[in-house]
Amino acid sequence: MTIKSRIRTIPHYPRQGVMFRDITTLLKDPVGFRVTINEFVHRYTGVRIDRIAAIESRGFIIGAALAYQLGLGFVPIRKKGKLPGPTKGHDYELEYGTDRIEIHLDAIDKGDRVLLVDDLIATGGTAEAAVALIESMGGSIVECCFVIDLPELGGRQRLEARGQKVFALCDFEGA
Amino acid sequence: MTIKSRIRTIPHYPRQGVMFRDITTLLKDPVGFRVTINEFVHRYTGVRIDRIAAIESRGFIIGAALAYQLGLGFVPIRKKGKLPGPTKGHDYELEYGTDRIEIHLDAIDKGDRVLLVDDLIATGGTAEAAVALIESMGGSIVECCFVIDLPELGGRQRLEARGQKVFALCDFEGA
Repeated sequence: MTIKSRIRTIPHYPRQGVMFRDITTLLKDPVGFRVTINEFVHRYTGVRIDRIAAIESRGFIIGAALAYQLGLGFVPIRKKGKLPGPTKGHDYELEYGTDRIEIHLDAIDKGDRVLLVDDLIATGGTAEAAVALIESMGGSIVECCFVIDLPELGGRQRLEARGQKVFALCDFEGA
Repeated sequence: MTIKSRIRTIPHYPRQGVMFRDITTLLKDPVGFRVTINEFVHRYTGVRIDRIAAIESRGFIIGAALAYQLGLGFVPIRKKGKLPGPTKGHDYELEYGTDRIEIHLDAIDKGDRVLLVDDLIATGGTAEAAVALIESMGGSIVECCFVIDLPELGGRQRLEARGQKVFALCDFEGA
């Protein structure tokens, strides 16, 4: 079994021309879900990580299971206005307009080594914003990890260009 | 250490008069997060469960870690329009207006025994909608479990009145 073969493609979602890579078919499969998480567990066991930060909301699914198994705390990065406590935010550009992610001020301590987790990297805009946010709080990013990379959209290169390490379990052609 | 003592209360969020119970302080604590998940793991080890369904998006954090540790598949229940594949939805009433949750059509098989997971039960409107949705697809609910119960808001009674079992790790007074 491969992880990639359990990911479903939904054509033209959320809009015409986009091939959406849907991990719900992977997650609902007990073996698929377990193997996915274990790939990350094996990669990060023995690495010094203080905290796992995951991006809303599919990133929560991967990041939480991984944090549990590695015995680490879990920190959510959310869209604007979703976190109840004092936050720090970072704006980033979308194809049209801007968006904003936020993290609790008490989520990262200075010097924390943070593993950043999301389900997918496309253009890398959200991940780059998350990296900037965590670094601005004095944390450093051990690695940015994803289930899926869409290499043609350049997110990996964008993160690597700013000195980040990037890891993905599989990649898909096209947008 | 207790789970309850690691949950932070944020007064007047998201609006005046509401005491918001914030689990992010519990989740970011490695011991707090692990103990929280383990409480559920101990309760459900040996129980016949086919699938874990969790409600967006804090429910994903609890449900995913639990599904991983129990070796079960994970199914997301999301707000309207967030799932990419064919879905079934269920509308439910809010204080003002209505809302809708959705699940993928292929997420539940007839006869599946499903554990429903969310972080908090208040009035129980969302959980009741999730129960109705899963039952309408031929699944049965083993139990509805939560980190926090707000008993004064009546959600537990509401679910129990329709024959559901409800379990929460702790409860808080007030809304």
